[in-house]
Amino acid sequence: MFRYTAASMTAAVLTVGTELTRGEITNTNASFIAEALTSRGHDVTELSTVDDDRCRIVQALRRLGEVHSVIVCTGGLGPTTDDLTAESVAEALGVALERDFDSVEAIRARLARAGRELSDSNARQADLPACARVLPNAHGTAPGFEVRVGRAQAFFLPGVPSEMKAMFAERVAPALPPPAGPCQTQIRLRLFGMPESAVNDSLAGIEAAHGVELGYRAHFPELEVKVRARADGEREAQARARAAANEVIARLGREIVYGEGEQELSHVVGQLLLDRGLLLCVAESCTGGLVGQLITDAPGSSAYFVGGAITYSNQAKEQQLGVRPELLATHGAVSAEVARAMAHGARERFSADVAVALTGIAGPGGGSPEKPVGLVHIAVATRAGCADAKMVQPGSRAQVRRRAAFAALALVRSVLLETEGARK
Amino acid sequence: MFRYTAASMTAAVLTVGTELTRGEITNTNASFIAEALTSRGHDVTELSTVDDDRCRIVQALRRLGEVHSVIVCTGGLGPTTDDLTAESVAEALGVALERDFDSVEAIRARLARAGRELSDSNARQADLPACARVLPNAHGTAPGFEVRVGRAQAFFLPGVPSEMKAMFAERVAPALPPPAGPCQTQIRLRLFGMPESAVNDSLAGIEAAHGVELGYRAHFPELEVKVRARADGEREAQARARAAANEVIARLGREIVYGEGEQELSHVVGQLLLDRGLLLCVAESCTGGLVGQLITDAPGSSAYFVGGAITYSNQAKEQQLGVRPELLATHGAVSAEVARAMAHGARERFSADVAVALTGIAGPGGGSPEKPVGLVHIAVATRAGCADAKMVQPGSRAQVRRRAAFAALALVRSVLLETEGARK
Repeated sequence: MFRYTAASMTAAVLTVGTELTRGEITNTNASFIAEALTSRGHDVTELSTVDDDRCRIVQALRRLGEVHSVIVCTGGLGPTTDDLTAESVAEALGVALERDFDSVEAIRARLARAGRELSDSNARQADLPACARVLPNAHGTAPGFEVRVGRAQAFFLPGVPSEMKAMFAERVAPALPPPAGPCQTQIRLRLFGMPESAVNDSLAGIEAAHGVELGYRAHFPELEVKVRARADGEREAQARARAAANEVIARLGREIVYGEGEQELSHVVGQLLLDRGLLLCVAESCTGGLVGQLITDAPGSSAYFVGGAITYSNQAKEQQLGVRPELLATHGAVSAEVARAMAHGARERFSADVAVALTGIAGPGGGSPEKPVGLVHIAVATRAGCADAKMVQPGSRAQVRRRAAFAALALVRSVLLETEGARK
Repeated sequence: MFRYTAASMTAAVLTVGTELTRGEITNTNASFIAEALTSRGHDVTELSTVDDDRCRIVQALRRLGEVHSVIVCTGGLGPTTDDLTAESVAEALGVALERDFDSVEAIRARLARAGRELSDSNARQADLPACARVLPNAHGTAPGFEVRVGRAQAFFLPGVPSEMKAMFAERVAPALPPPAGPCQTQIRLRLFGMPESAVNDSLAGIEAAHGVELGYRAHFPELEVKVRARADGEREAQARARAAANEVIARLGREIVYGEGEQELSHVVGQLLLDRGLLLCVAESCTGGLVGQLITDAPGSSAYFVGGAITYSNQAKEQQLGVRPELLATHGAVSAEVARAMAHGARERFSADVAVALTGIAGPGGGSPEKPVGLVHIAVATRAGCADAKMVQPGSRAQVRRRAAFAALALVRSVLLETEGARK
């Protein structure tokens, strides 16, 4: 049952706090530390959170110390009575707490700078397990410490995120053991427009052929494919991951794989506009401003985005975009004809090179057999003409809107990839 | 060592995914479920996260099943080869996986509605532990399931947050065992516009006076105050929580406490518009469509929202909203004068009763000593005139934009609370 234990050089993160186990706050400390350890080559396999209960902290520590080679723990080092981490560590190790007088003086000096006196509960923060190596805290009152728990090197940091982050960089990172085993590297490919199961089916055999591991993460409405490679040398690991990633791209196509790493679809579209010297505007109905918001998420988007119209009512479509009333009467507001007229109208009125328009039924009401919830028409107008797309995908209102906004950006990208740089 | 085990009626949350143990995403599922269980009176003492490793999933399940009476698990139910939860549960229980044909048909029907065929990997999602009770998923392809693991009632849900949340409400909440101990109830008050420390100071003494517990949760840019009461009878717990909540509202004021429970600020604004028979439009610069998006998040928002203009460039402000070039030249685009002109222009051009306009510097570039990043001017025009507000709060681009959008909605709410129902 413990087959992975023997050879394991894995790492774990332990976060302590009843505010976490009650779900009052999201555990950003755990993800920060997990990412920081992973990026340094450590294999983090477990994140554990327990409430402010001495018995449960002791048990969690003992258990993690049997399995992992590195533990980073945050929380429970504060001055109040529900801060129990130091005494729990002492109990787990069967040692006493001892007051560290250098830490007491550091706390006293820090409080004095804020015009405060050292109280008993402040001084209590300097009570550390007898065998601990102190990790001084230049960013707050609570010192951290390092001990050995079972087979693990264990670091204890305060839970205040700013203090924890600074202390991780200053005190933990330099003291970490070198990661065991082969070098590992990862390439994250970002996809839109193909269902996860179809992607999975398309990529059959790549893991074996390239000696890599593929991971999938749905980040609605996008999908991420992670290509992970391990090898003895860093260069070989990178080469292997790159070769496999290139095969993923070749199999799925550049239409689907729009970027890598931290690249957002809206930023990729922004860069294409910038490269071509083109200006974009939007005309949104069912998305109500979401496409504009995604585009302007990117700093510097004013270089390629002029603005747009949110035309929720028919009257707004007529007045703001010049959509003819006959068109609305004949085809209905949710139609390819109206999407195209919105795009043309926006492009002209906003003096833009490229206009993207959306009109659809986000639901939950308003659907019909001919025009169900999830039907969205998208059009992209340029100097060269107008491309359009229709999608019918059911889902919640938020899902329909978000998927539609991404589909609109994807259509802009696809049009731009075939567009010359010249301004209209 | 296991002193808490004997009498424990505790709950645990298990989240599965290498993207979590690597810190690639923050674990919002765990905090959502922990909060949902806590608010229903369950004592959540442990959150555990393991990577996509069958052996570690099995171990975590067995361990949690020895200690807790309820386990809710998410993740690893997708169609790809790294989704291992169902087979790990089967291994932990020593049973086989069996294909559930009702689930296969549900998946097939769902895919058919999107014009897709059932693939092998889709069908694999219906392979569940032999003893499982199926929890049908109306929001995605992967069914959930319930089994007994050790002494625990264990629920397994997909990791996609929207599916997980809906299935928790529909499938898990009704099936949970009654919590042990006294009845507890909770009222969640939603606040915007006061710093957490000031809220905390204003509420001193309420806990002791009413025999309740106050919890705070920052949900940027909002704040939630949770009023929890325990008593032997449900009615008494509710009465106590209500009395304390009323005192919180009285101390902070209705300007700050805008809603309760699931009420969103944008929905509260929508309801006020609906009650008064008024139509809203937006004129957005730095927020790029975010206010429109928040307003139209609400189903049925077309009853009170006509649309708006996203005027990112000066030219768009002039052409779409009739802002005079002299105004832009004299005061700059980010000024109270331009915000007011945008609001008046939008109100007129969109034939709306109420118009809200924003112009600001979202950063990270574009700031100056006189007009720093985080400066936002907001104006709300109605038949009666124009209200405006100025905010200067630094932060990331996303923070500035989000806080500005909420401040705009809050200003609309404040104006509406003083506005008669008559149309212009």
